[in-house]
Amino acid sequence: MAVNYKALTEATAVEYVKKNLDIFSEEAALQCKEIGDGNLNLVFRVWEEASEKSIILKQALPYARIVGEAMPVTLERARIESEALMLQGELCPNLTPKVYRFDRDLYLIVMEDLSDHIILRKGLIEGNEYPNFAENIGVFMAYTLFFTSDLGMDQMKKKQMQKKFINPELCKITEDLVFSEPYFDAAGNKIEPHLLDRVRKNWNNQELIKEVAILKEGFMTKAQALIHGDLHTGSVFVTEESTKVIDPEFAFYGPMGFDIGAIIGNFILNYIAQAAHMEEDQQKLESYRSYLLKSIKKIWKEFYKNFMELWEDNVTAPMESNLLYKQVYMRNLFEDTLGYAGCKMIRRIYGLAHVADIDNIKELEQRKKAQLLALDIGEILVLQRKEIKNIDEVVDRIKAFN
Amino acid sequence: MAVNYKALTEATAVEYVKKNLDIFSEEAALQCKEIGDGNLNLVFRVWEEASEKSIILKQALPYARIVGEAMPVTLERARIESEALMLQGELCPNLTPKVYRFDRDLYLIVMEDLSDHIILRKGLIEGNEYPNFAENIGVFMAYTLFFTSDLGMDQMKKKQMQKKFINPELCKITEDLVFSEPYFDAAGNKIEPHLLDRVRKNWNNQELIKEVAILKEGFMTKAQALIHGDLHTGSVFVTEESTKVIDPEFAFYGPMGFDIGAIIGNFILNYIAQAAHMEEDQQKLESYRSYLLKSIKKIWKEFYKNFMELWEDNVTAPMESNLLYKQVYMRNLFEDTLGYAGCKMIRRIYGLAHVADIDNIKELEQRKKAQLLALDIGEILVLQRKEIKNIDEVVDRIKAFN
Repeated sequence: MAVNYKALTEATAVEYVKKNLDIFSEEAALQCKEIGDGNLNLVFRVWEEASEKSIILKQALPYARIVGEAMPVTLERARIESEALMLQGELCPNLTPKVYRFDRDLYLIVMEDLSDHIILRKGLIEGNEYPNFAENIGVFMAYTLFFTSDLGMDQMKKKQMQKKFINPELCKITEDLVFSEPYFDAAGNKIEPHLLDRVRKNWNNQELIKEVAILKEGFMTKAQALIHGDLHTGSVFVTEESTKVIDPEFAFYGPMGFDIGAIIGNFILNYIAQAAHMEEDQQKLESYRSYLLKSIKKIWKEFYKNFMELWEDNVTAPMESNLLYKQVYMRNLFEDTLGYAGCKMIRRIYGLAHVADIDNIKELEQRKKAQLLALDIGEILVLQRKEIKNIDEVVDRIKAFN
Repeated sequence: MAVNYKALTEATAVEYVKKNLDIFSEEAALQCKEIGDGNLNLVFRVWEEASEKSIILKQALPYARIVGEAMPVTLERARIESEALMLQGELCPNLTPKVYRFDRDLYLIVMEDLSDHIILRKGLIEGNEYPNFAENIGVFMAYTLFFTSDLGMDQMKKKQMQKKFINPELCKITEDLVFSEPYFDAAGNKIEPHLLDRVRKNWNNQELIKEVAILKEGFMTKAQALIHGDLHTGSVFVTEESTKVIDPEFAFYGPMGFDIGAIIGNFILNYIAQAAHMEEDQQKLESYRSYLLKSIKKIWKEFYKNFMELWEDNVTAPMESNLLYKQVYMRNLFEDTLGYAGCKMIRRIYGLAHVADIDNIKELEQRKKAQLLALDIGEILVLQRKEIKNIDEVVDRIKAFN
């Protein structure tokens, strides 16, 4: 840990802002509140009532808050997060929070306050529609993935980038929680008793374990692009108009499909959960589910369209302009997307970290039904990703479970 | 370049040894000769007649010798080579030269003198048999690849290793010379006029270009293990009993099949060339070709056997112990091996750097025949790698061209 590191408090956060930043006037009356709900970071909102100006200070803690100092987590993740945010900000300035400063001693990122936004997961659980989101996230993924890959940047510079974003500790968390632990009787799994029989089937499903092992290997070895690494609906701030992707502390050079799959998998989880949340209003349910399924299609299609346009406009090398190669590349990316979406769904049902969409279903039978459906769809996406023709077929298969 | 860097001469090399190493006695009468025949390095042999002791000093030059200072090449490759040699030496002490010292200022490796060995390529061209080689190289590849992969080492440490071995400049050389330039009319290609029609077919073969693009992408993104990166028959010193793998300056985290394919592809090139070299003695030709084909089979089979034993003995994680996963893993590795072997063969016929096995064939018709055969077999390995069942079928297909 850096010698000068010290965890901020609400009081010292204000002092820090006064001393180091010229965002507020010198005589500004600053207020501060710690608003972090995560495990690994302190998040301070600092604001001035009079000018209505506000900023966020996000500081990495050297341990996981939930278990205290017993579980140390590298502070380096704050450097990785700030560098990823700045890079994503260059590529997609409207889709990322502005970064004002990164303090290497305090592992502290000073950035734009997005308090007028809400977390997408929360918005989806509440049943809100975000008409721009699918297009925005498609653009975000196309630009950030393309321009950090061998297709969109100098191949030697890409390797230097890859070096800067080697991220062993946070990759290890994903390797364990997403890929390994759900497939054996690991201590970290949180299995509701009514799921135990179904979960045991996964532990004994050699075909499923093989396919997840292949996807895990891809996560650990396929250095395709600088991926966000944790792009679920909890890592996106939205309003009806605006989309801001946050929290890229898991960023590293990995398989593109892991990002796309994360967002699609989490949309499917919300789709499954709505049957219970909107049970009382079938008309609303039908319309919202239709919105979610359209979003899933659009996320992939917007990504695809933008990525292919970038490829067309930016790649002149004869080999990488080969049409047949493009087709194979995009097909592999689609299969990765489905596979990772499936892994993400399964682990959210009985791994260490669940999602509110499902866990919020109070009634046991309804929750169980949603959980089992999520496990079935997750398994289909993993096992049948090579057979599924396109994103329309994914949506058709989900619909067929009604 | 380091401030203290200075290219050695025969005289200053002796001074260096006297001053810095205690291998020889103080009053030793040292002799020195520069014996490098490569493009990028100075190689000094320093020896004492009386004690029969000798060592090698290999110093990286900051430019390619063949074109002078116009083409700078990073000195960092000497660090990478020395670190790879030491690592390979720990894993396979009998199959690598001993490293006595690496001098970071001079980019100088002091190592064991292997003057009693000859370069395998030379030995094969001369028609010598090396009864231990196939087994030795199979063991070398199994141990160095397994124990630097996610299977054989801690996954977090592996990522730190990957960082140390990011090797942009030397990877770029391979990306250009092996994968890109042979597939369009690049200035660097060295195409004999009689091959031009055949080469043009490659430039127009969209299916071939697609498959090579996929293999190139694998080379650039598949961080499976610390590979040697240039494991052709010119990177191995042999005697009848002994095998020493040298020159890992291209080492980086890449696809394992690139190493296995390099050695197999170069054995096939020698096999093809012998029809001309041994034309006058058909009996010797038949026997030597049989030795070469047996070696090809044995290289793969020894690698496979040792790798699987290491897997069995060292992996306890339930997911990576899955039998179906092992089968897929080894099948993918086999297909990569064939694909990279094919790419290596093709580029050696009309890319920038040829091989003596083929270029030494003086008679034009014979040389042309060998060149065309190498291009055909290379293409088959690339295009049909997913259909070819096993290494025995590879050998059968090669034989069928007689």
